[in-house]
Amino acid sequence: MLGKAISLIESNHPKDQELASQLVDNIIDKTGNSIRIGITGVPGVGKSTFIEAFGEYIIGQQKKVAVLTVDPSSQLTKGSILGDKTRMDDLSKNSNAFIRPTASGNTLGGVSNKTREAILLCEAAGYDVIIVETVGVGQSEVAVKSMVDFFLLLMLAGAGDELQGIKKGIMEMANAVVITKADGDNVKHAKEAQAEYQHALHLFPTSASGWSPTVLTSSSLTKKGIAETWEMITKYQDQTTKSGFFSDNRSNQNASWLQEYFQHLLIVDLHGFTDVQKEMIDLKKQIKDNTLSVHAAGKKLLSFYRNVLRKHP
Amino acid sequence: MLGKAISLIESNHPKDQELASQLVDNIIDKTGNSIRIGITGVPGVGKSTFIEAFGEYIIGQQKKVAVLTVDPSSQLTKGSILGDKTRMDDLSKNSNAFIRPTASGNTLGGVSNKTREAILLCEAAGYDVIIVETVGVGQSEVAVKSMVDFFLLLMLAGAGDELQGIKKGIMEMANAVVITKADGDNVKHAKEAQAEYQHALHLFPTSASGWSPTVLTSSSLTKKGIAETWEMITKYQDQTTKSGFFSDNRSNQNASWLQEYFQHLLIVDLHGFTDVQKEMIDLKKQIKDNTLSVHAAGKKLLSFYRNVLRKHP
Repeated sequence: MLGKAISLIESNHPKDQELASQLVDNIIDKTGNSIRIGITGVPGVGKSTFIEAFGEYIIGQQKKVAVLTVDPSSQLTKGSILGDKTRMDDLSKNSNAFIRPTASGNTLGGVSNKTREAILLCEAAGYDVIIVETVGVGQSEVAVKSMVDFFLLLMLAGAGDELQGIKKGIMEMANAVVITKADGDNVKHAKEAQAEYQHALHLFPTSASGWSPTVLTSSSLTKKGIAETWEMITKYQDQTTKSGFFSDNRSNQNASWLQEYFQHLLIVDLHGFTDVQKEMIDLKKQIKDNTLSVHAAGKKLLSFYRNVLRKHP
Repeated sequence: MLGKAISLIESNHPKDQELASQLVDNIIDKTGNSIRIGITGVPGVGKSTFIEAFGEYIIGQQKKVAVLTVDPSSQLTKGSILGDKTRMDDLSKNSNAFIRPTASGNTLGGVSNKTREAILLCEAAGYDVIIVETVGVGQSEVAVKSMVDFFLLLMLAGAGDELQGIKKGIMEMANAVVITKADGDNVKHAKEAQAEYQHALHLFPTSASGWSPTVLTSSSLTKKGIAETWEMITKYQDQTTKSGFFSDNRSNQNASWLQEYFQHLLIVDLHGFTDVQKEMIDLKKQIKDNTLSVHAAGKKLLSFYRNVLRKHP
């Protein structure tokens, strides 16, 4: 059922969008009772194995876990880049876990809007912990940070120079860094990296939450650091709930979401105007024939749209 | 001047946007006379050093090179994630090179629209080769593919499993793969990877361009493969110009751009309606006070906007 509901919100079909909107309106009272955790890290850091170990530990604490993977879609195949890989095999078989890639698509505000709605659906379905996993570095992380309570960055010990270059922007968003693969010969390197990152994080300004970012080491093999990660997040939740930051942050996130959601509504709304759609097809033809520039066509379409709206009953 | 012009199109200020739009309209006749090359690859693959060697080689062929880096912005600092690193130091000092990070920002259609306009400005300024560099994997690549003539994927020999997982989606977009760091002890691995990727690419369906994706090896240290990469791209340009695909592809890209550009205009247009802006601020306040849901607020704002438009002279 949850899977079907998420498919509905992911659909770009106008009728599905209308139904999806009604669905989200109806479940909104049942949402909010979860901790939302964003987890990111470069390819190869071991996100899937970490989330699998972490998810199984949380389920052991009598909680239900949902994992939403923000998955950059492949434009050409309309499939997903990671879709051909079977991931988190054990966790996906657990009846207290729900795992779902949420294709970001190429619609405006695609990542954020649909993932936010998927979070709400998971909460209404009774999941206590919502993990939003992102792949790679960049815009998805910024979007995910804006929709979670706690943002966790996974890092490898001894990563290269280029990785260090991207660290600052992502690191300043992180509530915690977990150094992965701290097992066997790698334990020493992981400990060194832990000290180094902990030092680096001290150089950032104190965050509004009053929380000082923590650096842990972990191993998905030996399960070291998994329980500690959960304890840390629980401590964060307790501390920020008491200070009021936790709920303030969510309210602020919702307010920011309005802008994005409204832009999304505007675009969806356009599909209802068949005249505008026809005009766009005609203008595209003129662009292909090189008789009209994109900028000129855009302005024509805007004034056409405004005229249609004015005449609309 | 070119730098200032790009800053103008990057500005989100309504007056700057109006000026930027006029500027692009005025230079449009002087655009199009370049080859637009997208270059991507995971962090650590050596994009900067490759582009530096490649750019210097092209300048040696009596051409002017512009490099636009699509740079995911840091939401918190409003700076750019990679902005703190000095990159392509030598190339940036060359008077026939222009290097510019184009911050993607967090506006809708941010990456594509502004980068597309920056490409046009570089062309009007007389640059023969426009390189659009993207960082990481995912949505930026899809956007960049939609605005370049040739899409080049840099890869490392012996990359891990997770990297192989993301390969398919990005690889199917690539017109060529260049294995980097093929020097010293790494030459053998690079050759093996070359054969492997060449085989993998043969399994993809033939592209509309009629071009079979090529795999080369290169070293930014020894400059091996740099001239070959340029020759390959020249060959692609010749072949697809003769077949008509080159210009058809650009026309189709422009037609797709219309949709995005129109959505961008719609959002920019909103800033002109102070009533709508005021209403949004009021609705955001209600959301923060938890007296209104984001979905309900979005719908209220849409009907408010429609009413304002109807009454607007």
